[in-house]
Amino acid sequence: MRERLRKLLPLAEENAVRYRRDFHAHPELGWGEYRTASLIARRLQELGYRVKTGQAVLDGKSRMGLPEADPMRRQYDRAIREGADREYAETMREGFTGVTGELGQGTGATIGFRFDIDAVPVRETLDPDHFPARENFTSRHDEAMHACGHDGHAAIGLGLAEIIAGLDARLPGRVKLIFQPAEEGVRGARAMVEAGVVDDVDILFGLHIGLGARKTGEFRCGTRGFLATTKFDAHFTGVPAHPAYDPHKGRNALLSAATAVMNLQAIPPHGAGRTWVHVGSLTTGAGRNLIPDRAVLVMETRGETSALDDYARTYAERIIATSAEMHGTRCSIVRMGEAASGDSDEGLMRRVHEIARRSGVFPDLKLSNEGSIGVSEDFTHMMKRVADRGGRSTYLLLGSDLVGNHHSPQFDFDESVLGRGVEILALLALELGGESHEV
Amino acid sequence: MRERLRKLLPLAEENAVRYRRDFHAHPELGWGEYRTASLIARRLQELGYRVKTGQAVLDGKSRMGLPEADPMRRQYDRAIREGADREYAETMREGFTGVTGELGQGTGATIGFRFDIDAVPVRETLDPDHFPARENFTSRHDEAMHACGHDGHAAIGLGLAEIIAGLDARLPGRVKLIFQPAEEGVRGARAMVEAGVVDDVDILFGLHIGLGARKTGEFRCGTRGFLATTKFDAHFTGVPAHPAYDPHKGRNALLSAATAVMNLQAIPPHGAGRTWVHVGSLTTGAGRNLIPDRAVLVMETRGETSALDDYARTYAERIIATSAEMHGTRCSIVRMGEAASGDSDEGLMRRVHEIARRSGVFPDLKLSNEGSIGVSEDFTHMMKRVADRGGRSTYLLLGSDLVGNHHSPQFDFDESVLGRGVEILALLALELGGESHEV
Amino acid sequence: MRERLRKLLPLAEENAVRYRRDFHAHPELGWGEYRTASLIARRLQELGYRVKTGQAVLDGKSRMGLPEADPMRRQYDRAIREGADREYAETMREGFTGVTGELGQGTGATIGFRFDIDAVPVRETLDPDHFPARENFTSRHDEAMHACGHDGHAAIGLGLAEIIAGLDARLPGRVKLIFQPAEEGVRGARAMVEAGVVDDVDILFGLHIGLGARKTGEFRCGTRGFLATTKFDAHFTGVPAHPAYDPHKGRNALLSAATAVMNLQAIPPHGAGRTWVHVGSLTTGAGRNLIPDRAVLVMETRGETSALDDYARTYAERIIATSAEMHGTRCSIVRMGEAASGDSDEGLMRRVHEIARRSGVFPDLKLSNEGSIGVSEDFTHMMKRVADRGGRSTYLLLGSDLVGNHHSPQFDFDESVLGRGVEILALLALELGGESHEV
Amino acid sequence: MRERLRKLLPLAEENAVRYRRDFHAHPELGWGEYRTASLIARRLQELGYRVKTGQAVLDGKSRMGLPEADPMRRQYDRAIREGADREYAETMREGFTGVTGELGQGTGATIGFRFDIDAVPVRETLDPDHFPARENFTSRHDEAMHACGHDGHAAIGLGLAEIIAGLDARLPGRVKLIFQPAEEGVRGARAMVEAGVVDDVDILFGLHIGLGARKTGEFRCGTRGFLATTKFDAHFTGVPAHPAYDPHKGRNALLSAATAVMNLQAIPPHGAGRTWVHVGSLTTGAGRNLIPDRAVLVMETRGETSALDDYARTYAERIIATSAEMHGTRCSIVRMGEAASGDSDEGLMRRVHEIARRSGVFPDLKLSNEGSIGVSEDFTHMMKRVADRGGRSTYLLLGSDLVGNHHSPQFDFDESVLGRGVEILALLALELGGESHEV
Repeated sequence: MRERLRKLLPLAEENAVRYRRDFHAHPELGWGEYRTASLIARRLQELGYRVKTGQAVLDGKSRMGLPEADPMRRQYDRAIREGADREYAETMREGFTGVTGELGQGTGATIGFRFDIDAVPVRETLDPDHFPARENFTSRHDEAMHACGHDGHAAIGLGLAEIIAGLDARLPGRVKLIFQPAEEGVRGARAMVEAGVVDDVDILFGLHIGLGARKTGEFRCGTRGFLATTKFDAHFTGVPAHPAYDPHKGRNALLSAATAVMNLQAIPPHGAGRTWVHVGSLTTGAGRNLIPDRAVLVMETRGETSALDDYARTYAERIIATSAEMHGTRCSIVRMGEAASGDSDEGLMRRVHEIARRSGVFPDLKLSNEGSIGVSEDFTHMMKRVADRGGRSTYLLLGSDLVGNHHSPQFDFDESVLGRGVEILALLALELGGESHEV
Repeated sequence: MRERLRKLLPLAEENAVRYRRDFHAHPELGWGEYRTASLIARRLQELGYRVKTGQAVLDGKSRMGLPEADPMRRQYDRAIREGADREYAETMREGFTGVTGELGQGTGATIGFRFDIDAVPVRETLDPDHFPARENFTSRHDEAMHACGHDGHAAIGLGLAEIIAGLDARLPGRVKLIFQPAEEGVRGARAMVEAGVVDDVDILFGLHIGLGARKTGEFRCGTRGFLATTKFDAHFTGVPAHPAYDPHKGRNALLSAATAVMNLQAIPPHGAGRTWVHVGSLTTGAGRNLIPDRAVLVMETRGETSALDDYARTYAERIIATSAEMHGTRCSIVRMGEAASGDSDEGLMRRVHEIARRSGVFPDLKLSNEGSIGVSEDFTHMMKRVADRGGRSTYLLLGSDLVGNHHSPQFDFDESVLGRGVEILALLALELGGESHEV
Repeated sequence: MRERLRKLLPLAEENAVRYRRDFHAHPELGWGEYRTASLIARRLQELGYRVKTGQAVLDGKSRMGLPEADPMRRQYDRAIREGADREYAETMREGFTGVTGELGQGTGATIGFRFDIDAVPVRETLDPDHFPARENFTSRHDEAMHACGHDGHAAIGLGLAEIIAGLDARLPGRVKLIFQPAEEGVRGARAMVEAGVVDDVDILFGLHIGLGARKTGEFRCGTRGFLATTKFDAHFTGVPAHPAYDPHKGRNALLSAATAVMNLQAIPPHGAGRTWVHVGSLTTGAGRNLIPDRAVLVMETRGETSALDDYARTYAERIIATSAEMHGTRCSIVRMGEAASGDSDEGLMRRVHEIARRSGVFPDLKLSNEGSIGVSEDFTHMMKRVADRGGRSTYLLLGSDLVGNHHSPQFDFDESVLGRGVEILALLALELGGESHEV
Repeated sequence: MRERLRKLLPLAEENAVRYRRDFHAHPELGWGEYRTASLIARRLQELGYRVKTGQAVLDGKSRMGLPEADPMRRQYDRAIREGADREYAETMREGFTGVTGELGQGTGATIGFRFDIDAVPVRETLDPDHFPARENFTSRHDEAMHACGHDGHAAIGLGLAEIIAGLDARLPGRVKLIFQPAEEGVRGARAMVEAGVVDDVDILFGLHIGLGARKTGEFRCGTRGFLATTKFDAHFTGVPAHPAYDPHKGRNALLSAATAVMNLQAIPPHGAGRTWVHVGSLTTGAGRNLIPDRAVLVMETRGETSALDDYARTYAERIIATSAEMHGTRCSIVRMGEAASGDSDEGLMRRVHEIARRSGVFPDLKLSNEGSIGVSEDFTHMMKRVADRGGRSTYLLLGSDLVGNHHSPQFDFDESVLGRGVEILALLALELGGESHEV
């Protein structure tokens, strides 16, 4: 079987690079991945997977941070123009851009792989030194760029899909490929979890290029120290009035918002670990000579654990509510995203380490990242659901030489790692699929 | 009768100066005027007045801004040591330091005169240029000084008492002399009003040396534009905790208080007139490395009208309550003083102007101050009650050359105005007493 | 001459209504009045006036609150499409949209009339009850509406121009018509003053429909109590950073701005009169998980006098500068508009009153508004310059029944007042022009 | 030698308990330890030590957080009344309450031991369950209590002094006992360091009862993770004024202080580790109707490293300076205490562990505390100086069953640990003194 794998790899690798460049040139922001997701679904279908999309894999109400209806429609239309699969795209209208594909009938374990597919709102550099510029596959969309490597994740997913399809008959259990929308802003995972997507998965893998593994050849078999986070917007609504004639008739939303901003900084640290509260923007809507009647805070809390994030968020919500009341304004808080804290499963990390060591694919192999990873990932929702149902999961870090930081206009990774990614995931599918999920 | 008055005046004037210097040397803060009030009561009794003191002239629950029990006891003991009338002082224990004296049986109107008798918490200068220093009657008490002229008011009251007593048989109606404690901080008048002290008064006069009349020879027959005000303290109570170990267990009273201070400044102006909100002090009680669990704001609101003061105070109270809730502290608000807005009665002012003009006592005579007086006086409570019962009142300004500002350690007025004050009040008592109170 | 005037009036009135409706249908925001101003210039030229436009009547550097280059260009192109006079418009490119016209050679006084011509950023109601809707001349531009009556002012100006032209030979002195751009936001007058437009004017009139005169038939010969005001934007520039990774590398512009907002409320009132400080909007530019590196406050100060406005503005500028320094951000303040305090000239008001009384045009005639007008007008800059050079000026209030408030989408005035406006101004030109300017 | 030690121990232990109770009954706050220090000096002299006190062991200018002159004088007088050694106390006047004693002539290493001797400002409970109450040695001073075990530290120091004196002839090197004043508030160590007290010490030990070792029988051979800290007061000075008459003439110190408080909370966290900024109290000095012209913040910063503390303190100082400037007040910052970050020396900890293990004194022996100790100690200044001169140091934790928390009125430790403390320190002195200081 390893031999068969070795035969299939070169083509899968070549295809992965091709997929990656296509996705990179057509980046789509969260909940608008109509082209990306529909093409993935089509390809999975061609390969023989049992494909599900749209409302079958996303619980509508659990989606967070959706764009407004108008831009969403424009994204859809553009996707169609740029070659989306019309049939599948149709199933994804209004922000249902998730896909799963399943293969195998074996009695062994169900091995899940999750790939996130959305881009970030950054305008890509056109600097001739930038590899995608040199190779002519930079983003065609001003508002978006694959500046976090999710183009690579999606490509690895399709590469893996090809290999697995080629090995189908030999699969001891089942393989489930999960393509998740809207990971940026930690908005999408919960809706897939609530739709039951990971309920039948025994062993679940997430994967990220870079992050705590910034050299080609590195591989980390798990991740420790995901931060819990909540993303939300606070909307203050007041009453406009002329600031010199009848100021007492106004209800000043800016006062409420500025008071909230100052006091949000003052949430006491927690003795049990670190918390963060951050306001990314404050926007009010009135003119120069009117008491501002609207204000919006775009913000987030984080904690080393979910309990710490709860502490910070609850305190923040109280500050927002009392800041409103203080100046007679009303406020509402809209949840825009969330992720739990979490660590990879110890036993599974060790199992992965053993398999990876034997494979010889990675010269720099470690059990896990050093220290806390210090970022948030909504993969943690899936980890939690899998664990609650008796399964295990880990989040793999695929090392790559990087240009620029994640989310910067200069970001680029080393395409040669796509093949290594496909290979190690295929090995994991084969070797763990035969096991009972009691790894 | 004017002739008889002319005969009595020189002695009354001489005595008034003597009283003034004695009061000046023994200043007593509000609700602690045991010596001042008991000596006034004794003198009124000697002159034949029907005297009332203590709980007969002050409603206990309506008193505001009382000192703590301990300092009050010490003030009492000192008063006794310094020659208070023991019998009357006994009736005034625990802050019941008011006096009224009534004379006359006539069927004419009841003419009331109100004099405030308390000192201010200022340490008097001992500069040899300071008149009381030169004449050797500076304050014997470090914590207090008659720096607002109430020593003069009380002295005029006793001088007037002597004159009226000398004219007794000729009184067309009745004269009621009201000596009020705790005018500073507008704390005392309400309790006298609630005890019914002005309920039988047809025409009521208040009087102040200086303020809007800063030259000897000036006289203003009334006052316009008293500001309404509320004095109160806001107490925040939190929970102490160590700021690095377990800061999340604390409830930070300083955060609540500082948030309140900043937001109190932000109360919108009112289209209908001016308001003021002022925090005079903020004090917290914890050490350097403890989360402060107590904070007190000493503050006041003002308004051009009582309605405007209500607006400011109500908004301020909401800010205080929400500042507490915001950081999980508790708060309570204690009323420490209050005065209404108010203006002297038009008709009465004109009547006074006519009498004063005929008397020739004052070379610079005007109906009223110019513009708004811009200060607060709890005499307004009495004005309101008198008006509610169909009577009239006015607040007279007795001009005097002044040294220093009111409430400054250098404050001094021209003693020669005491005689003028006694004379004009006596004339008013005589001329208006004969009238039905429909002036 | 009055007879000749009477003959000319009906046509002028009819034309004024026509002009008004045309301007109303084509409202242009401040510094973009290419169509309005160029058509006025053309008409003045036709009538024989000595016309000046563009940089001849506006000092470029003294203009405040200009739009960005792009929207300005789009406004210009639209004006051309909608029938602007190409020749004159060409002289006004890039926001030089002022016009003056002069007539007369007499040795008498130079009488100036100032008319403001810009619209406000309000979308006009299309309610069938709205008179312009019924008569089919509502705004063709979504972003603007003549909701403050400046369409009427410009129309009166042209009506007056026709009358004066018809009386030309008889003019004792000279008449100067001044059409000012960008009065909204008090942005335009200073630039006309700095270009010397009023330097040769002996008697200057400004005029407004409505404001303190809200009934047809009212006329106020002057205005008291214009508030001084300064309009400005404060721009804070910080450094972005990730709020959890390397927050210490950021410089948080929102913190600077929120601190400024809170402290701007805390500028102490001034003992000499009222001041106002108002922040109309606060906008920051970063995303949810970035330390905001830009913030803009759109704000204004006001004072009952220019000195009081200076006090408030200077304090505000210090708060802004120290709020920046406090958090390591940079700030710059851009002046967007300004007006001085001011009152109409007493003697001139009385002269106008006499002329208006004799004319019998207005049943409800008064010397001035009651109390302070409580608004700001950059006409005050012109008043000041005229007074500095020995002349006199007054700001007339032309009463009109109004629908809706000024600046509301429902605003409308009674067109019948246009004729009355033309008539009284013509009378003033004739009767005062003969005088030496020592009125 | 171990045998000789065993013979001396029982009496030393008995005496230590006696010393401890005497110190406990006469607690003295930092810089006022006249009785404690003078009796220690006297006892050391009796035992044959070379004793230094006062300015010989404390650099005057480097002392921080001294009390005012008056209370200091009162503390001195009380100490004399309560049996201080008059001769030594005389050398300590005005806050020079340090002592060192040296013994031994050997050529071996100089082993230093530092004991802190001051009490905390807490009123001791008189609850009959409280051991000192039961045994009748509670604090005779209302304002102070030995609630942090420094009475035990001083007693162990004297017990050790006795043992060492008994072993004198056998000492391989020299022993230096350092009794430091004013450890509370981290105020005293720097002045001893600047006086050169540890410059000749090769190996230095500090010791604390409790903290990270809260069971009798525990012993930690070193301490990791002292927090760096700076204690300071910020004084704002403004200008008083009446809040309604002439508020613009005031400079409001409370506004500066409240703005500082709010913004101090907003100092961004540092990516390299934790920082804390804490305001323990805010006090302003004016009356209700005066603009407050004075405000004092009592505060501290902390950091996991000295560099982090520097970051927080520098940012805090900038906030304070700009808050003053913002409202036209002046400010000054007075340093009240400071401690560096620091960890015990690895090699020395291991050496101590070995000696302690062999001694069998402690059933629960560990190299160090778990995690960071999370408190500050000015012993870190001594550690740094010793390391800078090539020596080594460690801070020992002597476990004890505790009642109440450190600094609580109920605090008590288990007296039986005094003997264990004396014993282990004596062993360290003997075993390490023979070594070259290259441990």
